Order: sequence, then structure tokens, then C-alpha cells
Amino acid sequence: MYRLPTLRERIKAIRCALGNEKPDIVLRNCRLINVLTVEIEDVDIAICGRLICRVGDCSDILDKAKKILDIGRKYVCPGLIDAHVHIESSMVTPSIFSKYAIMHGVTTVFADPHEIGNVLGIEGIREFMKESSKCPIKIFLTVPSCIPATKIKLETNPNILTVEDIEKLLKDDWSIALGEVMDIGSIINADPDILKEIELSYSMKMRVCGHAPKLRGRELCAYISSGPDSDHEITEVEEALEKLRRGMYIMIRYGTFSKDLEKIIDKIPKFAISRTMIVSDDINIIELREGYLDRAIRTAVKRGLDSVSIIRMCTLTPAEYYGLDWAIGCIAPGRLADILILRDLENFDIDTVISEGDIVYRDCKLVIEFPYHIYPPHFKTTVKIPDLDPEDLILKFEKKYTMCKLNVIEFTKDSIITKWRVDEFKIHDGYIELPETYYHIAVVERHGKSGNIGRGVCCGIDLKDYTIGLTISHDSHNLTVVGKDCRDMYIAVKELEKIGGGIVLVKDRQVVEEVPLPIAGLMSDSEECVDRMIRLLSKISEDVYLGLRHIAPLMFASLVVIPDIRITDKGLVDVRNMRIISPIVELY
Amino acid sequence: MYRLPTLRERIKAIRCALGNEKPDIVLRNCRLINVLTVEIEDVDIAICGRLICRVGDCSDILDKAKKILDIGRKYVCPGLIDAHVHIESSMVTPSIFSKYAIMHGVTTVFADPHEIGNVLGIEGIREFMKESSKCPIKIFLTVPSCIPATKIKLETNPNILTVEDIEKLLKDDWSIALGEVMDIGSIINADPDILKEIELSYSMKMRVCGHAPKLRGRELCAYISSGPDSDHEITEVEEALEKLRRGMYIMIRYGTFSKDLEKIIDKIPKFAISRTMIVSDDINIIELREGYLDRAIRTAVKRGLDSVSIIRMCTLTPAEYYGLDWAIGCIAPGRLADILILRDLENFDIDTVISEGDIVYRDCKLVIEFPYHIYPPHFKTTVKIPDLDPEDLILKFEKKYTMCKLNVIEFTKDSIITKWRVDEFKIHDGYIELPETYYHIAVVERHGKSGNIGRGVCCGIDLKDYTIGLTISHDSHNLTVVGKDCRDMYIAVKELEKIGGGIVLVKDRQVVEEVPLPIAGLMSDSEECVDRMIRLLSKISEDVYLGLRHIAPLMFASLVVIPDIRITDKGLVDVRNMRIISPIVELY
Repeated sequence: MYRLPTLRERIKAIRCALGNEKPDIVLRNCRLINVLTVEIEDVDIAICGRLICRVGDCSDILDKAKKILDIGRKYVCPGLIDAHVHIESSMVTPSIFSKYAIMHGVTTVFADPHEIGNVLGIEGIREFMKESSKCPIKIFLTVPSCIPATKIKLETNPNILTVEDIEKLLKDDWSIALGEVMDIGSIINADPDILKEIELSYSMKMRVCGHAPKLRGRELCAYISSGPDSDHEITEVEEALEKLRRGMYIMIRYGTFSKDLEKIIDKIPKFAISRTMIVSDDINIIELREGYLDRAIRTAVKRGLDSVSIIRMCTLTPAEYYGLDWAIGCIAPGRLADILILRDLENFDIDTVISEGDIVYRDCKLVIEFPYHIYPPHFKTTVKIPDLDPEDLILKFEKKYTMCKLNVIEFTKDSIITKWRVDEFKIHDGYIELPETYYHIAVVERHGKSGNIGRGVCCGIDLKDYTIGLTISHDSHNLTVVGKDCRDMYIAVKELEKIGGGIVLVKDRQVVEEVPLPIAGLMSDSEECVDRMIRLLSKISEDVYLGLRHIAPLMFASLVVIPDIRITDKGLVDVRNMRIISPIVELY
Repeated sequence: MYRLPTLRERIKAIRCALGNEKPDIVLRNCRLINVLTVEIEDVDIAICGRLICRVGDCSDILDKAKKILDIGRKYVCPGLIDAHVHIESSMVTPSIFSKYAIMHGVTTVFADPHEIGNVLGIEGIREFMKESSKCPIKIFLTVPSCIPATKIKLETNPNILTVEDIEKLLKDDWSIALGEVMDIGSIINADPDILKEIELSYSMKMRVCGHAPKLRGRELCAYISSGPDSDHEITEVEEALEKLRRGMYIMIRYGTFSKDLEKIIDKIPKFAISRTMIVSDDINIIELREGYLDRAIRTAVKRGLDSVSIIRMCTLTPAEYYGLDWAIGCIAPGRLADILILRDLENFDIDTVISEGDIVYRDCKLVIEFPYHIYPPHFKTTVKIPDLDPEDLILKFEKKYTMCKLNVIEFTKDSIITKWRVDEFKIHDGYIELPETYYHIAVVERHGKSGNIGRGVCCGIDLKDYTIGLTISHDSHNLTVVGKDCRDMYIAVKELEKIGGGIVLVKDRQVVEEVPLPIAGLMSDSEECVDRMIRLLSKISEDVYLGLRHIAPLMFASLVVIPDIRITDKGLVDVRNMRIISPIVELY
């Protein structure tokens, strides 16, 4: 966790800058990527404890230095900062997440753990932050403002955070801002509770992060008038420009579920680099292994953009946004020594990572140990399934009917938006006969609350002949199961109950693959889950990334704030009108 | 004073943005100077109460608007922000100051009232802020960190603020940052008290403003390592660039005592506009009448610089620096409606000023009333002179001597730096015979503390045959008197005691002109002082501005942190070695 530079550290740094105390490390002959002035500068850098104490000529203190690294005119860059991420979406705990973050040069993240917050409330968030505070990267808390995502009761919410709860969380040491205010309906209706959270945050000198997908014009003005001053939900160029002009900092996504960077980045006005950031929002461990913000930088630079400007967006700008540029986000005296040494700038190829003065990654190898956090036992027993029979998971009809028209969820590729279809199906002996490309879908309340089951039919995905069950189901994280056969679906549900949550693949009454995610049914504390995930995805597609893209929409099947049609434990949801609808249009 | 937008105001703004509530004012057909993206944009602006609620097309709400101002495509600019000013240097109270500020488009200032703080301690600062909080501009407190300016006891300090005092002040509602940390000696020596103030400020999410004249290289790194992250004392281009590169926000001065703008502004790297501000530091009422930041903008634009970039430096950048860009510094929804309408952009000619939604200046006329604050009686009786005779104000020698060599203060033009001379003088009957261009100078402790009198000889100014006495004497504000004749000097001292402080001009045993500054001996609460000041300056020079430049150095004669030689109530000070020295080098 972030600790303020202490008095003792400052004293040492002052003395060290003056040459009266031994520096711990001197980096000689650096080509500094100076994000403060957006230029390259030839310097030496002296580090004393956790702090940078001198930038410039250090030749007079070389003989005193405990360690000298001659950088040989390689590029040196501030540690990267992800201004908005839900670590739970990686499917691993903060410790494992931080390991991969470091390998890709990310030394600070601003986390909004509203996934674990939905499942386990304040206690969940605080336990998550306890682990985070032991990690070798800095993980700040942006306090989840919308648990549940919306006040309209379209599903069973495992937890509800009140204004008082949020006030408590804002006072925690690790808190830095109010997390994404995404209940746009409540804002537009000027709901006093959400406005109280905003007022409270500003009175505590904290930023209020926004979430306003596709909002424009007068609605956007209304939303911004309520207080939030940033947005990471931008998908179009004109939307980006309007949000910048109307006073929002923008965060362009390059994560697993949304990659908006390439579409938008070239069109950002040059002087808006101090109000534009690049974030992941959600990044799955499968992608995280391969790249993080380093990959985003490479992608932007390949488009011909100025690398120093792009790097500013991933370092100084987020630090400035959160009011922390006196401590992180640049390589300057008094800042924490979070420093990357690059093999080359064009490919942003990271050689060495220094985090708070410790060399944590050297010659492309991690050289530190990572913590292991023991969660309370009940964090691993969150999956509480109601008594059910296989047939409870699918739609059934009176035997007299032979045909039906149903409201159908059509998932779309590379997006979590769904389309609302109405299709005709044959009924045989009370059961639907599903064509090749259609599946049953059910959402089972899994927090031991209502025991509800929502049922429907979906298409637009290809699971081959597998049945898939998962306890990641934004944001209430009930259990979603999709398949052709209710007995396989039942086996998936029971297996998920047994392993405490995760993802399972079932075929012909057998569990074929499973990825246990026992912590809140969302995260694994074992790296073994990576191989398991790869095996599972390989079953669905030869290309694991394609497999991930196939199943990702299922994780959002219940997210009632995203158009057009959703399914929760209470049934199908018409998102536009925010109401539960019957799956049945007609029976005959 | 700044009040957070309240819940009720936000609700109204949201409803108004959506078209469900009547806007108070709609500004039609504006050419918006959009400092967020550094571009000009054609928009309408809707205001609801104190807040801007919509920017963009407002044609749908025109019929609902209580007032419509058709701007006719004139330029519209955010209210200007002075990020660093000592209001006391204007010689008028915050109310009168705010009147002139508004006329020149300044709607927010960040004040460091360490002048009244030196004279009257915490109580002085809080009373000053009480008045400030009633003014129609926003006056934030940057808490004075160095009262007295230095810990080395080279003068009698009327007040000393401890770390505990500063903690109390930081907790006041109007406080936003720690004010200029100017005791560089204590920083370089890693004094724990000053570092505690810094630690405290950051723990309260407050910026730490710096003050580091001419500091470069390792000393600069040491200073920045201690915490301060801005500087307004920059006088050279290379110094500006180094400070930007090493992580400081820079504030370029265009005030009465320092005008560094023209020298530096063209050389600022283009992407550093988000880390560069323009400030006054000190601005006297005589200059303030004629111009403020508007004049600075005109000056910069005349040099061919992009006006929108320059305006960003005086609006959004200071708002961002203090973490207030969600509330001020730009024209965007949810921000306080601080708006200037310009006749033209090139001359930055202000037509109308709107402050927090109120039209306060229209067609070049003020259209509001200003508050009058009644200070406690003892604020007007701060001048307590020891018993003294005229001859106590000048150097005297044993009658046997006929010649002497003395250490002499040479004042310099357009700078508060002094030069240290050694000159030879004749002695007659125990008294020095002063050549034409030399004067006696004395500093009389005037706070009823030690009753000390420091004596010396100075040159480099031209007072004609006048004797001048003043109770503005940075930073301890003792009484400085300069003249040829000790009886005139005595009359000046006694007159200042009578009027409670200010500036007096004496000639031939007569008080010729006087500017009473009864509040703390620093400020007047009557605008009459302006005419008095003009009359007084006209005596010294035909050009009042030249007159001001003549007497300005005298106000800093005691400021022991500025080179080379100073005089306090304890005597002459060798600034480089921080010690009291004798005025006498040799007697014969």
C-alpha cells in the first residue's frame, strides 16, 4: 500500500541530494523520458531508500553510492499507472495480479473492487485491500459508489452499500477517490443518496470518477453537473471530444472487454494529453500474461503517435488526476522511485522495474517474493445454491402447446451489448426444441438469499456441445449456466457449488474442465488457475483469446445497465424500460 | 468564500440541464475559450443558481430562461485565477482588493496572508479570512508556513507560528494548501519542524507551495525532495526549465515587485502549459487599478503567444494545481459560473464579469455592493513605538573621529536585491556628513516587543529632500524610516505611531503627505488611500509608477532572505552569512 514519505525518509533524501549521505542506487547515463515537459533528457538519477533524491549530474556522489547501474543511454521511464481497473476481472488475487503488473511495468493501480464488494460487502472490500496493501505495487482504493449497480430491483443483490458505508470506506487510509458513479438513472433522477456520496467525497478532497457510456448532449451535461469529472466508457471519437470539452478527464480503455484505444487515440487534441489517460478497466489473467499498459503504449506508438505523450497519459496524467503527482507519475526528486528501464522505446520493451527503490524485475526476471494472503474461511464459501432439479433450469410449458415465440438474448461478438430477438421454437412434450445455434440460459441466485432462478433462451455464442457454468456474473455475481441439456446444466451448477465458484465446462454428464475461483466465486489465489483457464478456453476455441472473447459476454449477461436485454435471477430484463419481462411472447 | 456546491444546487442543475427547471441565465452565441482542449468553440451556456449546468445548444430551454444574454459571438472566458498573492501588498483590505480584481476579470485568488500573520498571528490570519469569505470573489487560504521567514533570529519577530498553529489553520474550511515554504535554510538543514508541516499537509491532501529563488542543481533537488512542488520565484529561463523538469509547477510573476513574464513565457515548452501559471505575488493598489492578470495576458499575447494557451495558465492550470478543476477554472457543467465576456480577445478587453452566477460587472461598471468588515480595535493599534529621541535614529560617533568607513546598503532599481558597498564619510561633531545621494536608514521595532532600533546608511534611491517612514517592512513589518535629518525622521516615526501605521512623507519638520494603513499597519479599509498614495508618490516622482518603484525596495529593506545586505531592528545583516554586522568598518 501507499505510505506517505515519512519525515525520516525526507531528511535522508535531502541529505543525499546534497551529497551528505550515501545514495542507495545511482542510475548513470539515463535517457530520461521526462513526462513533465514531454521531452527526452540525459541525466543520472540518485535513489535514497524509497525516494528519488536527485535527477541530473550525479558524478560527485558516485564514490558514495551503494550501487551504481550504468544504464548506457537506455531509456528510463516512470512506472506505469492504471487509473481504473477491477482487479477481480483478472480472476486472480491482488498478489498474483501485481506479479504480472510488474512484469509489464505497472507499479500503481487505482482499483474499484466492486465485484468483491457486491459479493461480500464492506468486509470484502477491506479484506481485498488488506491483501492489496501487502503487494509490491501500489493499489489505491476508489471506493465503490454503486453496490448494487442500480437501485431498481431487477435482481437479488447480495449486498447494498449505504451512504454511511461509503463514508466509512472513504475514511480508510487506502482510499483516494469515489469510484465510478454508474447509476446514471439515479443521477438523472437527482437521487439524493448518490448526490450525498458525491458531496461527501469532494468535502474530503477526493475525486469523483464517472461512468457514462454513450451519454451526450443535455444528459451528459446533467450527469457532469452532478459531480463526476472523469469517464472510462468512451467508445467513439466524437464522444471523447465532447467529454473532454465538457470538463471530464477521459480514460481510454485497452483491456479484455473493451479496446477503444486505436479508434480514439489519434483524434485527441494535442493539449488534452494532460486530461487523457489509458486504462484497462477489466483485464483477464490470460491477456495480462501477455501485456498490460505496455501493450497499450506499443499499440498507440505503432499508430505513429509520439511515445512521450502516450507515456504521459499512463504516468503523470493519472497521478495529476488523483492529486498524487507530488509522489508518483514522474521521475523527479521527492517522488517514490518507481522506474522502468527500457531496452528500446519503440517497442516499449521493459528490461528492469524498480518499485519504491527496490529492484523487483531485472533482465526480464522477477527478483522478489510475493505475499500470500489468507482470506477468512467464509470468503471461500460464497456459493449457496437453492434446492433444485435439473428441470428448474429451463423453460417448461403445458404439454398442449406445440409452438412458441420467445424473447431471446442474442450475444454479440467483441462487445457486451446484447440484441433483443423474438424467435419461434417448436415445443415437444412441454420442452423447447432448440435449433443448433440456440442455448438454454439460467441465472441461479447463489448467495443464499432468494433462491430465485431466471430462465431463458440465448444465441450468438458458440460453445460447441459444452455446457458452461460460471459464478462471475456482473455485478451481483449470481450463477449463470448456459447449455443444451438441463442435466449437464445441473451438473455444472452442483460442481460450482462444490468448488466454491469459478468456471466449469460439462459435456455428456461429465465435468470436462474447471477453473476454481474460490475467493468470492471470483478469484483464485493460485496461479494454477492460469493453466486451467487455458485448457478450458482451448476446448471452446483453438485460439484461447478467441475462446475468451466467446465466454466474456456471458459474464455480463445479468448486467442490467447495459442494453438491450439481460437475464437475472428474477428473469429477463428489458433494459430500456428497466423492467422484468416474460420470456414468452406467444404459445400455440 | 468558496462553498462546495450543495446537494440542492446539484439537484437544480441536473434538472435544469435536462430542461426540467428554469435556467437563471442563458448566454447565447458565445465563442467559448475552451481551456480544457485549448480551442475556441461556438456554444450557448446555461446557468442555474451558482452553477453552470449546460454548455452546448440551449435553444430548447430559451423560452424557460429567466434571463437571456445574446453575446453575439463575443469571446467568453473562465474567470481568471491568481494562484499566489499576498493581498496585504495591495495596501487595501480584501473587500477593496476584490473590487479591483473583479474589474480585471479575476474571480478567484489563492492568498498567503503572511504579512498580517507576522503582525497579528493566527488571529490576524483568521480575521483577514473572515473578511475574505464575505467578498464577491473566492479567496482561498494557503496557510503561511514561515512566520517568521527564517528561524535564525536576526530581527525581533512579532509572532511565531508553531507546527501546532499551522495544523489548526490547515483544518480551517478556507484552507487549501500550505503556503510558500521559504525558509530554505531550514529545509537544507532538514529541520524537522518544517518537514512536519509538509508531512501534515500532504496527509490532509493539500499541496505544498514552494519558494526557491535562484535555487538550482543539487540544492534544488534537495529542496524539492523535502516536498514543495511549485515555485513562483523564477527569474531566468533556464531556471524555469530546470524547475519544470524536476517536477515543480511554475508560477511566473507579473506583479508590482517582480515582472518575470516577458523574459520567460516564450521559452516554456508547449506541453508544459498545464504546469505553468501566471501570478502576481504582490500587486500594489496603484497598479491594480490599471490591470491585473488581464494585463499579464495582454502582455503575453502581444509577444505573439497563443492566447488560449496563456488563458489556460491563468484559469485551468491553477484550478488543477489546487485540485479544484471540478469546481473552477473552466466553463463546463457543474462548475461555479465564473465567466468573463470579452469585447475582443487580442486586447483581452473585459465587458462583463459573472461571479458564481451573479453579474457583478457589466458594460465596464461594477453593479454590486462590496462588504465592509469591522476589524477588532486592536488590529488598528499595532504601532507601538519605544521611547526615543531623534538622535536615536542615526549613527553617532565619539567627537574625536573625523572620518569613517561604513557598510552601506545600496538599493537597486526594479529589484528588491541590494548591493553591499563600503564608503568613506566625513564626521563632524560626532555626526556623519551625508553626501547628496546618501540617506540615514533606521528600523524601529514597532510591535511593543524589544524596542530595538537598527541604524545605518543607504543609497541607490532618490527621495529628493523628503524623509519617508513606513510600517510595511517585510516580513516582520517593523518601522523603516529613511531621510537626511534625524528630526524629520523622528516626526515621521511619531506620525506613524499616531495614525496607526502606513506611509508618511516629511519635509522641513512638516508631514507633507500620509497614507494611513491602520489595519496591522499594512492595509487601509478606505479607498481614499488610493488618492493619498498617488499624491504621496507624485511628490517623489512625476510618474507615480516610477515613484512606486522608488519606494518599493524600502519595503523589503529588512527581508533577510534576499541578498546582499539588509537592516533590521537588530542592525545590519550580512545575508550570505546570516549574521548581524556592525555598520562601522573603520573610524579615524
